Amino acid sequence: MVNSSGNSDLRPLQQHLGYQFKNAQLLQQALTHKSYARDNNERLEFVGDAVLGYLVGSMLYRQYPLVQEDALSLMRAELVRGRTLASLAKELDLPPLLRLGSGELKSGGRQRDSILANAVEAVIGAAHEDGGIQACVALVDRLYAQRIQNLDAESLKDAKTQLQELLQGRGLDLPVYEVEEISGADHQRQYCVSCSVGALNESASAYASSRRGAEKAAAQLVLLQVQKRGADRD
Amino acid sequence: MVNSSGNSDLRPLQQHLGYQFKNAQLLQQALTHKSYARDNNERLEFVGDAVLGYLVGSMLYRQYPLVQEDALSLMRAELVRGRTLASLAKELDLPPLLRLGSGELKSGGRQRDSILANAVEAVIGAAHEDGGIQACVALVDRLYAQRIQNLDAESLKDAKTQLQELLQGRGLDLPVYEVEEISGADHQRQYCVSCSVGALNESASAYASSRRGAEKAAAQLVLLQVQKRGADRD
Repeated sequence: MVNSSGNSDLRPLQQHLGYQFKNAQLLQQALTHKSYARDNNERLEFVGDAVLGYLVGSMLYRQYPLVQEDALSLMRAELVRGRTLASLAKELDLPPLLRLGSGELKSGGRQRDSILANAVEAVIGAAHEDGGIQACVALVDRLYAQRIQNLDAESLKDAKTQLQELLQGRGLDLPVYEVEEISGADHQRQYCVSCSVGALNESASAYASSRRGAEKAAAQLVLLQVQKRGADRD
Repeated sequence: MVNSSGNSDLRPLQQHLGYQFKNAQLLQQALTHKSYARDNNERLEFVGDAVLGYLVGSMLYRQYPLVQEDALSLMRAELVRGRTLASLAKELDLPPLLRLGSGELKSGGRQRDSILANAVEAVIGAAHEDGGIQACVALVDRLYAQRIQNLDAESLKDAKTQLQELLQGRGLDLPVYEVEEISGADHQRQYCVSCSVGALNESASAYASSRRGAEKAAAQLVLLQVQKRGADRD
């Protein structure tokens, strides 16, 4: 992938991204690890991390109008964590394009999650410097729309089942659901349901327009808390 | 400030913000604490936090082209921390506009930093939902341009002195500066200088086009690390 001038062919990556850089030098810099050169991707990573947090947060806010703030935060944390970004890097075929110092190369840096995750953030930062936030809106949508959809399909729709399976897998008691409040007129009833898992000392409450919906949303909150505890130990 | 219909006059606030809401209901919601109503500011705070992190990060990136990623992160943390946001809330005269439940009111919620900080974030989130990111660019610029300038005047320009005073105040040894590297051709010399504070077990290196500049930048990094340790204990 590297030609005689030491530059890689960045056209396939730009096709994957759905974004054509006006200044390809910025993209090259986004792929340059600090072990390789002083003009590396660290500052671009700072920008990309901020852009990604904003755009993914904003997408979640719109996609999940009934989900509360703490659950949105956990969902976003899952979507922008290192492991997720590293798989994005692999989907984008970034590893062969990375410019690493010889030490990092020998120790397998091309496959290291932290290096890959930082490079993805830096690529988003480079797009921001090249084409502004509008370029990033399209790019992040392309990278994340399906993932945010899947969060719905895999996680939200079946959070009760997932939580149950997770607890059974650990030999723990099933969660307890309780209706805390029913409010609103007939045609706009709101249910507030709590979900508690005594063994893990986790509980959460959520609102929805049906009891079943509120149970699912509360289960989702607890599930994300449990997963976050797991992720923090990574 | 509250009229007979229970709504406050939000015109002065919009003048402070330099932004006129198309949907004033969103601004009202941003000022509504969860203790007051279910339609509260928690989700807007989620959006505002993300928008603010992005825009302040992006402003710092442009304003400080020579500052490295970790220092940018610390500078941003200082600018968006609760205490800073709470003083912004007071400058904007937010406290009398907040809608709080009676318990929070009695316990002095109007002056509580966390409530004020969340409300400022929610106001930014509301501007985002009302006028998109462009509305927020103008608003955050208005709130932060001077603060980012002051960071320069107060912190960056005199970081060596500040660090020295801080260490003297604690009865600790002065920092040690060492030139680690000089590179580049005559007309574009780059200096890398490290700054170490043995007693606090902190050190950092920075690049600049002059030795003095690199010393200041390295001192700034160490200073921010020391301040961050202080802030984490808040």
